[in-house]
Amino acid sequence: MDTRFSTAIHALMMISQGEPPMTSEAIANSVGTNPSYIRKVTGLLKKSGIIHSHPGIRGFSLVIPPEKLSLYQIYQAINETEEVHVFDLHRNPNDACIVGRHIRPVLTECFREIERKAEEQLRQLTLADCMDKMRKRIGEET
Amino acid sequence: MDTRFSTAIHALMMISQGEPPMTSEAIANSVGTNPSYIRKVTGLLKKSGIIHSHPGIRGFSLVIPPEKLSLYQIYQAINETEEVHVFDLHRNPNDACIVGRHIRPVLTECFREIERKAEEQLRQLTLADCMDKMRKRIGEET
Repeated sequence: MDTRFSTAIHALMMISQGEPPMTSEAIANSVGTNPSYIRKVTGLLKKSGIIHSHPGIRGFSLVIPPEKLSLYQIYQAINETEEVHVFDLHRNPNDACIVGRHIRPVLTECFREIERKAEEQLRQLTLADCMDKMRKRIGEET
Repeated sequence: MDTRFSTAIHALMMISQGEPPMTSEAIANSVGTNPSYIRKVTGLLKKSGIIHSHPGIRGFSLVIPPEKLSLYQIYQAINETEEVHVFDLHRNPNDACIVGRHIRPVLTECFREIERKAEEQLRQLTLADCMDKMRKRIGEET
């Protein structure tokens, strides 16, 4: 389970709403994890220029407005890679076997189109889209 | 890392080539794992009617021919679910927070289209396609 991506979207939704400014502690409390895990995630988001924080001021703020921030940008920031990864490959196939020797490039090739399509879809979804969906659900709840 | 899906494709490629019949030990040797892990994977493939074994005869054989066996059928068998899962969600968001309460259904909704598309693509790829790609690579190697 690698839940840093969904954690990052959660954190960004909170930061974008942030009044008062969102701290790692407040985000961790909502995500259901500890502040040091959140600091790892926000560290990656800061490194990519998606959020920033000011010395002496508590909390983070968004650099990119939610309607311009795609889920692909968030994915890239968190995974520190351009490529969307969809299915894991076993790591140690046996090179002495002809199937073992070729399986990883063959599966990488098979999955590439799926990953390209996922990337395209992540590019089309923005943080604002996620927030709209959330507002709709909150509206239905009340 | 959940590599059962790629392990299952690897195992099925070996089984479909299987002359002599492929045993868990031979598959494990090529995959780079232990036979008991392979038996878990082959158990799921048997349960779904993709492979079978005969009492008193060593090794497995394919029930569905490679050109009719889609990667989606393999995925379903291994994950014991109809739905393709692409991104993990954090498990314990805080219900007391309005974002925490709605984040999982919101992200599930955001990712659903990506997962549907991935399913569609897995339905179009067959074990025979993977074997063709492997044959091509083996041909380039020699």
